[in-house]
Amino acid sequence: MKIHIVKIGGHLINDQKILNDVLKNFCKLQGYKVLIHGGGRKADFILNKMGISKNIVQGRRITDKETLDIVVMTYAGIINKNIVAILQSNHCNALGLCGADGNSIQSYLRNNININYGYVGDINKQSINTHFIKFLLNQKIIPVFCSITHNGIGDLLNTNADTIASYIAISLAKEKNNEINLHFCFEKQGVLRDLHNPKSYFQRINFHSFQEMKKNHTIKNGMIPKLENAFFALKNGVSQVSIGLPNHYLNDMNNNTILCL
Amino acid sequence: MKIHIVKIGGHLINDQKILNDVLKNFCKLQGYKVLIHGGGRKADFILNKMGISKNIVQGRRITDKETLDIVVMTYAGIINKNIVAILQSNHCNALGLCGADGNSIQSYLRNNININYGYVGDINKQSINTHFIKFLLNQKIIPVFCSITHNGIGDLLNTNADTIASYIAISLAKEKNNEINLHFCFEKQGVLRDLHNPKSYFQRINFHSFQEMKKNHTIKNGMIPKLENAFFALKNGVSQVSIGLPNHYLNDMNNNTILCL
Repeated sequence: MKIHIVKIGGHLINDQKILNDVLKNFCKLQGYKVLIHGGGRKADFILNKMGISKNIVQGRRITDKETLDIVVMTYAGIINKNIVAILQSNHCNALGLCGADGNSIQSYLRNNININYGYVGDINKQSINTHFIKFLLNQKIIPVFCSITHNGIGDLLNTNADTIASYIAISLAKEKNNEINLHFCFEKQGVLRDLHNPKSYFQRINFHSFQEMKKNHTIKNGMIPKLENAFFALKNGVSQVSIGLPNHYLNDMNNNTILCL
Repeated sequence: MKIHIVKIGGHLINDQKILNDVLKNFCKLQGYKVLIHGGGRKADFILNKMGISKNIVQGRRITDKETLDIVVMTYAGIINKNIVAILQSNHCNALGLCGADGNSIQSYLRNNININYGYVGDINKQSINTHFIKFLLNQKIIPVFCSITHNGIGDLLNTNADTIASYIAISLAKEKNNEINLHFCFEKQGVLRDLHNPKSYFQRINFHSFQEMKKNHTIKNGMIPKLENAFFALKNGVSQVSIGLPNHYLNDMNNNTILCL
């Protein structure tokens, strides 16, 4: 079966009108599908309003217990349930999930000898409960994942949403006869050559050109881990990975950046 | 099949140690089961910390949009996911849900000509997606409901948790061969004759004695709607309703108040 794995993040989450449009387009996507969402800026807004200051150690943000609680409330609470309610109003039978629900994504505490990141969970190929996700898809239920996982001993952990999308795609690609399309959606039309020119997106990037562009700094900052997740997925059986505006690629795949090995 | 519908609320939610004990006991309960939880005091704490004042009209609390967002974050976010993660750590395959998830509980905006309650949803016998709940139970998945529902046109609504528990029990009792036990759990051993004496609980209350005790004010305040929900469930096919401490009745039903028609 063909399955679309769609990750939405960035400004697509922050603006309710844009989010409504994105979700309407997601509903039009034919066949099996899974949605993964990031948290946008809402958690920062609430942390700020509650007077909880950012805990930064060696330039890295630490998820302490107080911050985790707000992140869980925001991602698994208001953002996830708002998305599910909108999808339901568009006759799309969505089910909101964090990794603890149905034991769908089990993570482990990030192990870094230099920095204790706090309640941050990393995942691997064994983390995804493929059986449960397939069981939902076979019932025409659309899983909507937020980026909260659990460690199996009672703790909720904050996990990168792009990484969750990649591993869900990889785990479903392991099954015979599955064709997995992974879409990383954000507010730009694709990976841009020039950040100041929204039309300057690459139509295709292969793994070799990605390595070159990292070296010469054409691609930098947050786009590097996103593309690393994307190539990791392609190397592990995912059929196609695209990056760009969701409205466009649902109608026309050529209007985004397509990644290939 | 025999199904336990367990509602937990009040102080059982506020204290993490007590909650852990309650959930351990819930896991020991044999057979099919559904958990419904209230919100405890956490939402008030966060509203207060965020400087959102209570909106009171004619002595009634109004759920405006700002309050709703915090209630959704608290009930469907941190409380629901914390409960699910603890249940999973006890090898109980829980799945956290609000009414929008899988379209499990559809409500309608409270219709009151005198007061506009805001984002408050009422439910009726048609509101519960029995098919979906049975589908989860048949897969040995334990549904964990918070008291947030949706109206099908994109809005999340705040709904009374006792009422949700009653209607879930009633909807499952409609099926042939189902025996439904409904448990309202809180921090007291049962319905008390004397609020200052925790051992003064009634062993049995029938519908006639409930009417008498309402008249002579032996039963008052928040206990009245709870018992009304309980008797409504009994009149609509639920086999047994008990009220009391969860630790006790899981071991010994006689240590709580049992309601009968």
